[in-house]
Amino acid sequence: MRLSEATWTDVSDLAGETDIAYLPVGSTEQHGPHAPLGTDAFTAEAVADAGAEAYDGEVVVAPTLPVGVAAEHRQFPGTLWLSPDTFRDTVRETATSLASHGFDRVVVVNGHGGNVDALREVTGTMTREDDVYAVAFTWFEAVGDYGSEMGHGGKLETALLRRVAPELVRDDRIEEARDGGSPRWGDWNAGVNLAHDSAEFTENGVVGDPSTGTAEVGEELLELAAASLARLTSAVAERDVSRPDRRE
Amino acid sequence: MRLSEATWTDVSDLAGETDIAYLPVGSTEQHGPHAPLGTDAFTAEAVADAGAEAYDGEVVVAPTLPVGVAAEHRQFPGTLWLSPDTFRDTVRETATSLASHGFDRVVVVNGHGGNVDALREVTGTMTREDDVYAVAFTWFEAVGDYGSEMGHGGKLETALLRRVAPELVRDDRIEEARDGGSPRWGDWNAGVNLAHDSAEFTENGVVGDPSTGTAEVGEELLELAAASLARLTSAVAERDVSRPDRRE
Amino acid sequence: MRLSEATWTDVSDLAGETDIAYLPVGSTEQHGPHAPLGTDAFTAEAVADAGAEAYDGEVVVAPTLPVGVAAEHRQFPGTLWLSPDTFRDTVRETATSLASHGFDRVVVVNGHGGNVDALREVTGTMTREDDVYAVAFTWFEAVGDYGSEMGHGGKLETALLRRVAPELVRDDRIEEARDGGSPRWGDWNAGVNLAHDSAEFTENGVVGDPSTGTAEVGEELLELAAASLARLTSAVAERDVSRPDRRE
Amino acid sequence: MRLSEATWTDVSDLAGETDIAYLPVGSTEQHGPHAPLGTDAFTAEAVADAGAEAYDGEVVVAPTLPVGVAAEHRQFPGTLWLSPDTFRDTVRETATSLASHGFDRVVVVNGHGGNVDALREVTGTMTREDDVYAVAFTWFEAVGDYGSEMGHGGKLETALLRRVAPELVRDDRIEEARDGGSPRWGDWNAGVNLAHDSAEFTENGVVGDPSTGTAEVGEELLELAAASLARLTSAVAERDVSRPDRRE
Amino acid sequence: MRLSEATWTDVSDLAGETDIAYLPVGSTEQHGPHAPLGTDAFTAEAVADAGAEAYDGEVVVAPTLPVGVAAEHRQFPGTLWLSPDTFRDTVRETATSLASHGFDRVVVVNGHGGNVDALREVTGTMTREDDVYAVAFTWFEAVGDYGSEMGHGGKLETALLRRVAPELVRDDRIEEARDGGSPRWGDWNAGVNLAHDSAEFTENGVVGDPSTGTAEVGEELLELAAASLARLTSAVAERDVSRPDRRE
Amino acid sequence: MRLSEATWTDVSDLAGETDIAYLPVGSTEQHGPHAPLGTDAFTAEAVADAGAEAYDGEVVVAPTLPVGVAAEHRQFPGTLWLSPDTFRDTVRETATSLASHGFDRVVVVNGHGGNVDALREVTGTMTREDDVYAVAFTWFEAVGDYGSEMGHGGKLETALLRRVAPELVRDDRIEEARDGGSPRWGDWNAGVNLAHDSAEFTENGVVGDPSTGTAEVGEELLELAAASLARLTSAVAERDVSRPDRRE
Repeated sequence: MRLSEATWTDVSDLAGETDIAYLPVGSTEQHGPHAPLGTDAFTAEAVADAGAEAYDGEVVVAPTLPVGVAAEHRQFPGTLWLSPDTFRDTVRETATSLASHGFDRVVVVNGHGGNVDALREVTGTMTREDDVYAVAFTWFEAVGDYGSEMGHGGKLETALLRRVAPELVRDDRIEEARDGGSPRWGDWNAGVNLAHDSAEFTENGVVGDPSTGTAEVGEELLELAAASLARLTSAVAERDVSRPDRRE
Repeated sequence: MRLSEATWTDVSDLAGETDIAYLPVGSTEQHGPHAPLGTDAFTAEAVADAGAEAYDGEVVVAPTLPVGVAAEHRQFPGTLWLSPDTFRDTVRETATSLASHGFDRVVVVNGHGGNVDALREVTGTMTREDDVYAVAFTWFEAVGDYGSEMGHGGKLETALLRRVAPELVRDDRIEEARDGGSPRWGDWNAGVNLAHDSAEFTENGVVGDPSTGTAEVGEELLELAAASLARLTSAVAERDVSRPDRRE
Repeated sequence: MRLSEATWTDVSDLAGETDIAYLPVGSTEQHGPHAPLGTDAFTAEAVADAGAEAYDGEVVVAPTLPVGVAAEHRQFPGTLWLSPDTFRDTVRETATSLASHGFDRVVVVNGHGGNVDALREVTGTMTREDDVYAVAFTWFEAVGDYGSEMGHGGKLETALLRRVAPELVRDDRIEEARDGGSPRWGDWNAGVNLAHDSAEFTENGVVGDPSTGTAEVGEELLELAAASLARLTSAVAERDVSRPDRRE
Repeated sequence: MRLSEATWTDVSDLAGETDIAYLPVGSTEQHGPHAPLGTDAFTAEAVADAGAEAYDGEVVVAPTLPVGVAAEHRQFPGTLWLSPDTFRDTVRETATSLASHGFDRVVVVNGHGGNVDALREVTGTMTREDDVYAVAFTWFEAVGDYGSEMGHGGKLETALLRRVAPELVRDDRIEEARDGGSPRWGDWNAGVNLAHDSAEFTENGVVGDPSTGTAEVGEELLELAAASLARLTSAVAERDVSRPDRRE
Repeated sequence: MRLSEATWTDVSDLAGETDIAYLPVGSTEQHGPHAPLGTDAFTAEAVADAGAEAYDGEVVVAPTLPVGVAAEHRQFPGTLWLSPDTFRDTVRETATSLASHGFDRVVVVNGHGGNVDALREVTGTMTREDDVYAVAFTWFEAVGDYGSEMGHGGKLETALLRRVAPELVRDDRIEEARDGGSPRWGDWNAGVNLAHDSAEFTENGVVGDPSTGTAEVGEELLELAAASLARLTSAVAERDVSRPDRRE
Repeated sequence: MRLSEATWTDVSDLAGETDIAYLPVGSTEQHGPHAPLGTDAFTAEAVADAGAEAYDGEVVVAPTLPVGVAAEHRQFPGTLWLSPDTFRDTVRETATSLASHGFDRVVVVNGHGGNVDALREVTGTMTREDDVYAVAFTWFEAVGDYGSEMGHGGKLETALLRRVAPELVRDDRIEEARDGGSPRWGDWNAGVNLAHDSAEFTENGVVGDPSTGTAEVGEELLELAAASLARLTSAVAERDVSRPDRRE
């Protein structure tokens, strides 16, 4: 059930049937010359919807939070970003709102790499301190071998966009996107990424090769991600989420 | 230009053409048994799009923030809310992101009464302390005489929904919505609203009569709101937004 | 009972007799060339005292907080201001102190328009989260038809000052005050005040016509405000202030 | 010049004449059965006024902040307290307001022992980080040998009250106050006060002997405090308040 | 140069010679029945010292921060933890102190996995907002193939302890440590760790096999880590750390 | 028991035996040309260890926090400092971690004058709001008559260093240290220290005469401090630390 489209009485009728909610979170940030700024929100939302469909049970899907932790892309026009603190507060307060209505097992469905650290932190904090159990699922970490090909505006994101919002991929700029990008995220030495901004290592914002991101790959990615999310949801539904006892 | 759908290169091409951005903000909260929880986000976004269309010039329309200041509705299932502090931080950081790219005259386009105080505060704070000029426009305060008929899930919101998302209005619950609602927002004495929660004065969350909210009224509301927003945008574009000199 | 003048044993003796406290809040800010910077504190305190007198029961009157939310007047020499956050924290902590002693129905008695939004927010927050019920009463919103004549350092405030602190009104500057002022608060377009600072629309800080603010009007205003406050106090004393049940 | 009673034009006329402001801060807290809760505010204000009078030059005296850091007295009815953070923020924002108008050498005139630590911290922070130089003067630390007789509601405060607000001292409870009090503040071991609340060591809130606090002593205390404050003001006016150079 | 052991004049003499500082950060948390709570601080400090030795140039080594982000181990007696916010603030203020003295390229030398996310965030924030460039080096991510064998209190940490603080390894509990531990960190499903506390997946706090952590391995680890850190330090020293230009 | 060197099972075994913990806190700041920046941490740790030894009972000694409130020394190279807020948060979270394991009577063992105010505040706050009783012991306030000779890098600190870390005292700079120092801390007028930075009153950072700080004096100081701390610990162990009842 998409929360935004439901009435409060619909939600009330659902009470007792499920305690699972999805909270999709994206980002509004550069994705190269060929892919829209809203890529991470579009993909997160699509995966959440597909996961809810794939899951054998009812799930409340909250509205997608469109702005995330993206200061690293701020040199590129149009990028929006929250401080990590504000992002965490937004996720935490939204998730605890959901929990107050009985949906106290929350899976954050994430579409942006820059959100990962903050989400790991805030889901841990919530689980320990609030009346909610929360985990964060990032779709491109759950698509099997494809995971290793994740870049930025590269194969995976371009492919998934072709599946969920094909009109927003600029076909005529794919080659330019590929040629002006970088093969790798970051600038590494001794296990440390020396770059704090993507503009330090990619000229046009792209990492990877978007030309390989076909609609077929996109279809497959959505299926893989939805299946993973559904499987995770079952695990979350069945898990004992009480905190462990102190060791003596 | 809808920011989410543009690429960073599109935004770059726009540089110099405009310094105006809209930031739509809604809420996810009960709107009676007949109207969806996302009402305020849907209407804010529709008004922002229509205003951008009506304005004689270019405007960047940021993605809609779907969660607002709505603790007053928290007794109704499905309502989500941010603390006013987090809401202000979110608006401020998003608006200053826009300003960093040259869109430093920001009109927040608001669809929710509960956001009004926080938006007045944060747009003032931003204008004084950051490199941005910001004001908040609330559509139902700019639709002429209709303004006086604003309730909650009542005539105005139901009408506008019939225009922008008709499939989400539950026709079969309109009468129930009207009959179980309240004629007035709040519980007043000596100029003071004694109620801090809507559940103190409305049984089903409705204030006003949704049955009078026809698609025709909705059409008119959207036109009035868009025209007001376009007019405001012109005024914002032309205004001297430097801060006044100290009086001596 | 004025708290500042009472001993703790006096307060202890009052225990059980009343659970009502008033917390007067003002501002120290420009009020034109003829009226003192402390106007809002003087008037709030006077109204609180008069209301306590008019109310048929006992009330604890806390000391007046003299600095409020007034950054909008900061271009005028002598204006002091708190950030809205600090103002809210001050009000909240003072009110919860009162509640800890059994005075857990707190009426904030306000003399300054710039405080209104912050007070609405913080009284709501306190009522929901702390062991206290709080509302904010702003005297010039409860003086009947006079309310529409409220400006800034205009008829109403000048009149009330003539009643409560006549020696502080500069008679010889009343005409100058009137002539250099503005007829209206703000600079409006499409329901939006484009001005964030009073210096954007008033040369000398005045809004309205102070020359019509006679001592007779002041007398009447104090009576009206006190009667309103007393009536409100009765309503607060009798109200069921428990939070509503969740809707199912 | 008392800021609350001045108009902004009066303050403007003062520009250039002085850069000194006093900010009186008190507390609203138990002072035994014989002395009012507002003791620290009354005395701080009186000392500030007397110091301004004694100083050979002009001083702007801000309104008195009536609530301070007093959680240690919260077991006694009527005591109000701010968290140290809120207290510091209030002092800092008020003082920087003063500085924005040219009064950028601020002497906080303090009447409450519980404020001392927080004031030392915040005046240091302001001096380092804001465009203001600030120090905190606590009157009972600047009255010569009398200083050693400071208790709580004891000789010194009772005496000064008899001088500045005699009608608020309850003569008929002086003996009771003395007999039910404590000879010493705190409960000490190895240089550490083990008590965090005054109720841990005084039954009725008094420390010291109020019966020795005559009006004559009060007169002398006010003169001593005013002379000290005036002397300090001269030193502040003449001091090089720029921050030292880094050592190389 | 170990900062704690130097005098300010020693540091002054170093000015101009280097702009590199190390800031070791550890944690005080359970490391199984055989390894001390201070393991992460001891190892971080040892690696920092060894790296400074290996680096061909001068480095200032700040004192080791002994408490980190470790709430996930709080069910085990003796574990200390800071909130991630306080940990970030501590690191940021310490690093900007270093930068104020000219050591404005700071390498945080980290010994604890739970600190990694917070350090990545805060070094990014500092680099963008403060006058400092900072990165975080975590020793067990820079020891070649050994990295894959990192557990908790397992082979790597036990080995390095045997090298740097052998007297603190309890030989007689190594078998018990191994047998009561877990082979893997976390409880994974679809790329998500469902466990937020280590007590959810390890009985005695150990992950991995400490019995394989010999002193020889420890020696090798220290050399590998020191070499990596020295190499990183050279890269940091030579890097253009100015922020990239905005893309147009 | 030194917490850093213990395993969690050691700590578990101690459960029930003691509820006392020491938390040593120092500072990393200039101590003149002859004494190391880490002086306050070294001395605090030594006193904590000696106190634990002297106390007739078991005590858990937490790791030493090496950075404190020291902005007043920031003009001297190498000085590190936390904001008072971050310092308080660090102490509070560390102490409440200790309390969560049953060590809920915490004595902060302090070696730095600049920490004193912040520690008094935070131990009070913790005792009132958290499940812990805390006090702060500053060693040089508990060494009898020696206390009056405390300066900065002067007799007392130099002496104690000679006892606990003699290799870190630069003998060849003692005379220079003495001659370039100041006889007194601060710049006083009317009971107020007009200086906010030590560089306002001492050229080389020293206050007092380090040449009188012999190892014999150091020995005596350590014994006096340890005896005081042990005595305090007994008092803390036996004290009724419940908060007092409200006065009626």
